[in-house]
Amino acid sequence: MTTYTPPARDMAFLLNEVLEAPGADIPGYEEMSPDFTAAVLEEAGKLARDVLAPLNRTGDREGCRLEDGAVHTPTGFRAAFEQMRQGGWTGLDCDPEYGGQGMPYLLGTAVGEMWVSSNMAFNMYQGLTHAAYSTIRAHGSEQQKATYLPKMVSCEWTGTMNLTEPHCGTDLGLLRTKAEPQGDGTYRITGTKIFISAGDNDLAENVIHLVLARIAGAPAGTKGISLFIVPKYLIDEDGSVGAANGVSVGALEEKMGIHGSATCVMNFDGAVGTLLGEENKGLKAMFTMMNEARIGVGLQGYALAEAAYQAARAYAQERLQGRAVTGPVNPDGPADPLIVHPDVRRALMDQKSFVEGARALTFWGAQLIDRASRTGDQEAHGLISLLTPVIKGFQTDKGFESCVQAQQIFGGHGYIEEHPMSQYVRDARITMIYEGANGVQALDLVGRKLAADGGKPMMGFFERVKGFIKAHEDDPALKESLLDPLKSASKDLQAAVMFFMENGMKNPNAALAGSTDFLHLFGHVALGYMWARMGAAASAALASGTTDAAFYETKLATARYYAARQLPATRMHLARILSGADPVMALAPEDF
Amino acid sequence: MTTYTPPARDMAFLLNEVLEAPGADIPGYEEMSPDFTAAVLEEAGKLARDVLAPLNRTGDREGCRLEDGAVHTPTGFRAAFEQMRQGGWTGLDCDPEYGGQGMPYLLGTAVGEMWVSSNMAFNMYQGLTHAAYSTIRAHGSEQQKATYLPKMVSCEWTGTMNLTEPHCGTDLGLLRTKAEPQGDGTYRITGTKIFISAGDNDLAENVIHLVLARIAGAPAGTKGISLFIVPKYLIDEDGSVGAANGVSVGALEEKMGIHGSATCVMNFDGAVGTLLGEENKGLKAMFTMMNEARIGVGLQGYALAEAAYQAARAYAQERLQGRAVTGPVNPDGPADPLIVHPDVRRALMDQKSFVEGARALTFWGAQLIDRASRTGDQEAHGLISLLTPVIKGFQTDKGFESCVQAQQIFGGHGYIEEHPMSQYVRDARITMIYEGANGVQALDLVGRKLAADGGKPMMGFFERVKGFIKAHEDDPALKESLLDPLKSASKDLQAAVMFFMENGMKNPNAALAGSTDFLHLFGHVALGYMWARMGAAASAALASGTTDAAFYETKLATARYYAARQLPATRMHLARILSGADPVMALAPEDF
Repeated sequence: MTTYTPPARDMAFLLNEVLEAPGADIPGYEEMSPDFTAAVLEEAGKLARDVLAPLNRTGDREGCRLEDGAVHTPTGFRAAFEQMRQGGWTGLDCDPEYGGQGMPYLLGTAVGEMWVSSNMAFNMYQGLTHAAYSTIRAHGSEQQKATYLPKMVSCEWTGTMNLTEPHCGTDLGLLRTKAEPQGDGTYRITGTKIFISAGDNDLAENVIHLVLARIAGAPAGTKGISLFIVPKYLIDEDGSVGAANGVSVGALEEKMGIHGSATCVMNFDGAVGTLLGEENKGLKAMFTMMNEARIGVGLQGYALAEAAYQAARAYAQERLQGRAVTGPVNPDGPADPLIVHPDVRRALMDQKSFVEGARALTFWGAQLIDRASRTGDQEAHGLISLLTPVIKGFQTDKGFESCVQAQQIFGGHGYIEEHPMSQYVRDARITMIYEGANGVQALDLVGRKLAADGGKPMMGFFERVKGFIKAHEDDPALKESLLDPLKSASKDLQAAVMFFMENGMKNPNAALAGSTDFLHLFGHVALGYMWARMGAAASAALASGTTDAAFYETKLATARYYAARQLPATRMHLARILSGADPVMALAPEDF
Repeated sequence: MTTYTPPARDMAFLLNEVLEAPGADIPGYEEMSPDFTAAVLEEAGKLARDVLAPLNRTGDREGCRLEDGAVHTPTGFRAAFEQMRQGGWTGLDCDPEYGGQGMPYLLGTAVGEMWVSSNMAFNMYQGLTHAAYSTIRAHGSEQQKATYLPKMVSCEWTGTMNLTEPHCGTDLGLLRTKAEPQGDGTYRITGTKIFISAGDNDLAENVIHLVLARIAGAPAGTKGISLFIVPKYLIDEDGSVGAANGVSVGALEEKMGIHGSATCVMNFDGAVGTLLGEENKGLKAMFTMMNEARIGVGLQGYALAEAAYQAARAYAQERLQGRAVTGPVNPDGPADPLIVHPDVRRALMDQKSFVEGARALTFWGAQLIDRASRTGDQEAHGLISLLTPVIKGFQTDKGFESCVQAQQIFGGHGYIEEHPMSQYVRDARITMIYEGANGVQALDLVGRKLAADGGKPMMGFFERVKGFIKAHEDDPALKESLLDPLKSASKDLQAAVMFFMENGMKNPNAALAGSTDFLHLFGHVALGYMWARMGAAASAALASGTTDAAFYETKLATARYYAARQLPATRMHLARILSGADPVMALAPEDF
């Protein structure tokens, strides 16, 4: 069995030394003392390591079953879910008005990483509930909030998001699910939705579906889509669970991975729902949910890579195979451990530098969300909007790659299901697809976010990077090995932005042909920036005479690895972008 | 169901116009007239499309079963195997002395691609038989050849290679399987082997295992390893199948993919075997098998990507989702096909330009093998030795990536097992691992092949590229768009070689830390070179007034795509290589 070790030390470094959460001027952060957050992370880490991680394989092997129309989750999920609820974990960063603990989203993110690393499929039931909670809280009436939120904060009821239909995923303007007004303020919803994660389960007493549908007579396309709350069981006047609604599970999908998560075909057959937010403004309301979910998926990208990295590291340290080219390091044994081989070391450094960089970016993103939502800071809001597709797209592309690298270290043993590596790869694969496939993230970034608010957020990002470099360039521990490569990478990103500005209007294909490369170019600069910030924090700790020098030296070495071995990718992405639309669009569709 | 379309037109272009096989001065090539090869490929294509492809999903869903110690292959495999044998396909490029048809390896490679694209797991039974045939033919006694080869050419008996043991894969020096001489020229083999592909099956009446073992009293390490022929059933004096030998299947591995291929734990319990080749020279003999198998796995890399690309292309042409940014192309439909979107087009071009480039490199490699084996040409021998790890490592890394890209085009539909995309990705994953994991290929390339024969093969490669550029630089259709980028990429490769030469001796880690990057850098230059050759052939055809201009224009456009969008990777790989060992080796093993 694989052991999951919660990365509590690394998280503390980010929270206290890089993001300086304890002293941040954000309401609620006054609770984020190092001792408090350490205690929370330690408790969460125990649950993740001792309860969730051992169920990860069970979830993969057993999967979910559909019997008599009801979904049964894998053995042990119910008890673990109950334990999570009892510990109050499901409402950690939820509004105290509805029973939550009101902690910052940043702390919820740190804890959430542990849930995902230890058991991603299991965590989806509460993850989707949280996203549905946020949507109802943002757009619901007082009555809707009072009815649903307390039960969702406690996860007595779970939530879902119902967007996709058989003929439309990305292009929601095509959706056909209908909503007929009943004259009493309710609607009858009819249609079929597919790929509905946690669409049904035996963990909660009710499932609250958020459903996109078209009200009879609404305009065509995306302008005629409304959002509805459709519970699996109707809610009685006293708030208790009542009769079954017209909602049923048509089928469970058989998937490549995340077998512990029930992916359902949902049939709505005149099911009773209430409008959430305004008529025909459903897509906008759903985006509340989508944006939160996208950050969550970006987190999944590196959290799975962390778990896979931990397994690969242990294997490389233990498995004896071959001899170090510079002479045996284990002369009394039959061979040296795999980790002596430079190419194995490279693969581990790739994983480690990605995971820790992505964790830093995600935590910073969470802090920006806290700042935006708790202080109304528009700059923070603009910046996290810009970064959301990067966090989702780049981190899941690279997270999958990282899991594949971890699997590779196991050789043939990585390919058989006896070891956990195949599952990590199969599970990670979905993160590149759901909540907007990564091509859609790239389109969102280049087609929408880049020019949003007159380009202010993008310029703000460049200014932060520039300001950071300027503020630290006198530190010889950082200058050549971290800041110069970051400056060069950032210039590549600026050149790409210039190219889009100059060509995008007259030839939109020129920008869109480079969208995925731009997403990756941005991702590398963002991680390079986070590594520079971590390097600066490590350098400061070393200068102040820390007793934990090895930790900070390791941080600096990993930062330098990222700068030396990952940042050179920016020039390649820029070259591809500058080649424009012609190479990409040269063939007619029928010539492929 | 997915339809597989044999790429006969593309293969004919390579055989006739790029490699100029019909006129090549290699014995046996006089049979390679365009009409003859077209007829062979058409017949093979029918079998692949109509018989093998429909069984691909069956193989994945059913997998193999172990019952009462015998492996049962999936439904339909037996009949298809019989059809393949009856058609004489299994001995296509085998020695006529043993019942083969004596065709060039090049033709066998083209046909083999079709088997793999249509059903890779199925093809492993005959693929391993072919590799075992080659090893016995190269190292066997006259009696061994007479006993085994005719039955293996016809695939009445299948073959295997038994290398890996539970505690050793790459490091074969650790192997423990014992061989006790019986004094009558035979040995008793005892030990356990794992990950044995096609270790048992119900397709053939006997299974001929080639087994690495250590003769009692042999030196430790790799110098004490011998190779044995160990049949599942002993062979009677009259050549017929006799009593069971001490060979049994301990278990069937449950794997991420290639479910139709039986991956066995093999137990040898005093099984009778005969020595193949010389005592203690087993590893060298096994390398005959390994080198052939490595080219075969490199072929699997792009052949699976071809199948996945065909599916993705069809989906992108049919699935309606969103509108072209430059205005609707399907205004009467609800949406435009996916292929209008530049990012989808980019993903398809990545796949197409990789698959066709890798096919060209593999076919060229096969021609070099024919030249080396049929004329004794030492230059060809040196070059294909150098290229083997590139073909295996680069093409399987990129082939897997390409399958992932194809899966991505399907969105959520690509993640469910109802569509074939998950299987392509799961199947492709093994190609990066078996026959020497890709890290081992990179080590072989940098640590052995690069300096082999005083570096002559590497210098020979550079001279070919240089000579080709010089010969064609007056063609304006090629100069700027193909030859200049190739020249620049080739210079990056030369710079990497220089760096290794200057640093490798005093600090071997400096070379090995860059080995995987070097493999990829080389792979891109090799594909860039093949694309330049294809571009030149296309340009010549257009200049001569072909009636099939669209085909050649498409070739040129795809060549230019590779040059513009893939070759920029060489600079990134070079930068990583030049950063040397320090970033990679900075951490102590315990600091990971």
